[in-house]
Amino acid sequence: MLTEHAVAVREGKIEALLPSAAAAARFADYERIALAEHVLIPGLVNAHTHAAMTLMRGLADDLPLMRWLEEHIWPAEKRHVSPQFVHDGTLLACAEMLRGGITCFNDMYFFPDAALRAALAAGMRSAHGIIVFEFPSAYAADAADYLRKGLELRDRYGDESLASFCLAPHAPYTVSDASFRQVAMLAAELDLPVHVHLHETEHEVERSRQEFGVRPLERLRALNLVSPNLIAVHAVHLNEEEIALLARHGCSVVHCPSSNLKLASGLAPIAKLAQAGVNIALGTDGAASNNRLDLFQEMRTAALLAKAVATDAQAMPAQAALHAATLGGARALGLDERIGSIVAGKSADLTAVALRGPELAPCYDVLSTLVYSAGREHVTHVWVAGELRVRDGELQNPAFARLDTRWALWQNSLGALAGH
Amino acid sequence: MLTEHAVAVREGKIEALLPSAAAAARFADYERIALAEHVLIPGLVNAHTHAAMTLMRGLADDLPLMRWLEEHIWPAEKRHVSPQFVHDGTLLACAEMLRGGITCFNDMYFFPDAALRAALAAGMRSAHGIIVFEFPSAYAADAADYLRKGLELRDRYGDESLASFCLAPHAPYTVSDASFRQVAMLAAELDLPVHVHLHETEHEVERSRQEFGVRPLERLRALNLVSPNLIAVHAVHLNEEEIALLARHGCSVVHCPSSNLKLASGLAPIAKLAQAGVNIALGTDGAASNNRLDLFQEMRTAALLAKAVATDAQAMPAQAALHAATLGGARALGLDERIGSIVAGKSADLTAVALRGPELAPCYDVLSTLVYSAGREHVTHVWVAGELRVRDGELQNPAFARLDTRWALWQNSLGALAGH
Repeated sequence: MLTEHAVAVREGKIEALLPSAAAAARFADYERIALAEHVLIPGLVNAHTHAAMTLMRGLADDLPLMRWLEEHIWPAEKRHVSPQFVHDGTLLACAEMLRGGITCFNDMYFFPDAALRAALAAGMRSAHGIIVFEFPSAYAADAADYLRKGLELRDRYGDESLASFCLAPHAPYTVSDASFRQVAMLAAELDLPVHVHLHETEHEVERSRQEFGVRPLERLRALNLVSPNLIAVHAVHLNEEEIALLARHGCSVVHCPSSNLKLASGLAPIAKLAQAGVNIALGTDGAASNNRLDLFQEMRTAALLAKAVATDAQAMPAQAALHAATLGGARALGLDERIGSIVAGKSADLTAVALRGPELAPCYDVLSTLVYSAGREHVTHVWVAGELRVRDGELQNPAFARLDTRWALWQNSLGALAGH
Repeated sequence: MLTEHAVAVREGKIEALLPSAAAAARFADYERIALAEHVLIPGLVNAHTHAAMTLMRGLADDLPLMRWLEEHIWPAEKRHVSPQFVHDGTLLACAEMLRGGITCFNDMYFFPDAALRAALAAGMRSAHGIIVFEFPSAYAADAADYLRKGLELRDRYGDESLASFCLAPHAPYTVSDASFRQVAMLAAELDLPVHVHLHETEHEVERSRQEFGVRPLERLRALNLVSPNLIAVHAVHLNEEEIALLARHGCSVVHCPSSNLKLASGLAPIAKLAQAGVNIALGTDGAASNNRLDLFQEMRTAALLAKAVATDAQAMPAQAALHAATLGGARALGLDERIGSIVAGKSADLTAVALRGPELAPCYDVLSTLVYSAGREHVTHVWVAGELRVRDGELQNPAFARLDTRWALWQNSLGALAGH
């Protein structure tokens, strides 16, 4: 960690990282933003979310998974999910994430075109899933249709510097072998990450054994999907061989601790994954199963939970949590040469956190303070590609101006459906 | 839950709870504070902390328990703990807790007289431990001395309406049978709660079996300490019989989920305790093992964690978490006739939470929003016994005016000792 340092930014990129005094001399004509009480960290990377589900935040909590899905989430999605819903929900998610220091998110949802437009309007970096399901939805008719629409989107927005793409076969229980094979082919051909829910619940693992004779990860391995491109989301139920397999192939795991707890999915073996050398990223999951798109919360929960699960108070120290929330996420998305750390040449995706207030005092170790004591409310400034998106805690982008009237409309219609 | 309601307050007490329109008519001459976007909840009760340890917040994190205690916490305490240390640390804790909506805390530490003075200066309600250890400290020479000093304190401040007292034998591994017997006698004689760390780690349970031939709870039962006065803090490692015993005797358990995770103590069986009917309260523990004195965080962590531990997404719903953080804590402290709910005749200990900002939208269920989405940063107003202690997020009490220079001094001396 460096103190009394400055970051020089030019054309959206980090030009130099140097002592403040040297910066004042060398970049005398640059606009200066002095942040005397702050720590500057790389913009946080939310490596797994369903951004538009903010509109279903708290719609149905404290319910068992299948009742939650079958009686609440799926009916609400069936009735409401449209390009407008996805646009408005994603914009709301962007407002929440930016204010909480998140500069990049990895999304998986219907109508990714609408999510992408919202993210661009918000000025956020985002990776969008070329989502694949077997079942039809308002968005697409079948697996081939999902793939075609996703690939078209990638063609259309391929030059957009803030946008990137993942293949996103939803999960082992919603995608066929044939579709997974196609995804594997496309991933190799286009060098795209493969973003998939994997080993989230015991039920998922058991169902795969019954249906396919093997556990989901082994099925994906046989279908050529276990590679450095694999982003295994959740990865809660893993045996030793599976952990070794993920490590050997350079896969990434996205740990979503709040979601795993809230849905009672289980306790992911994060210390073991870290020890094996698996790249670990952090994700909030969707707001319906969290209910915060808050990586400060996920850093803290991950660091605390890993210790109890491993019965080792040294498991996932503060630094590892911050790494997972920044460079770990960037690497999972294949963006680690562009974002995830404060290094000259990388994009100026930066978050400033004010270490003030009685709740952060005293401060003996900045990383401990950041992960264990601070919260997203201490974020004051956020830049994406050098553009100031949050200043003194306030969103700067006019795209958010009428946000509250938009979500209020959705609250009325979804709330009525759910009987609230 | 009531909407469009008002609370009338007079002489520190809740005079009435009634529809806002009726209140405007009936209490026309009262000062009015309109909180249009807010939810009003009972002031939160932090049922277990070591308030002065805020001065050691983040001093030594991510270390195994015995190294943490022996190489960091105990040497720091030995060198620094004094009435001034306890006063300044407790005042810092009060600032943090009040701003986070906590109106009452249950403290256990050396020099409780200094903690009590700080709490009174801060205008907070507090329960203070008549702490008992066998070993000497700067505060007292032996168990008899600890007890005598604590009882003197109770005599001196017995009429103070914001102060109450617990007998506080530290833990089964630091207190002898003889001292526990005396505590049991005093508890019965004076009808005082008994605040004790219990079944926090497997090591504690094992050590008791070796030393006393029984597990700690059975030892306390034989010493006549298992009664409605018992406040069992942590209660992580319990078997079915122990849960039934706690329920049968009307004991309270203080669940400290962040601390249990951070110190890798284990996962408390909260759903089972709740099902058995044990009164559950929430505590932050000290800032050195959390590192937040934040009951919003503990509510959320408790509600999420209980689900994963019980593998039941219905375990500890939002309402149960809020109950534990309010009336559950009040009941543990024997204060449930005076605080813990918004009822005419109880003390006006109240917390207002503003439900605004993209991170709390939409809102389908206020309790879900409070527990799963909101944080202490959404607290705007806090009253203790009718006195406004926080207004628009700002502490009102001049006692906090020079707080930052005080903790900065301690940061320098403790930081130097720890090599920071």
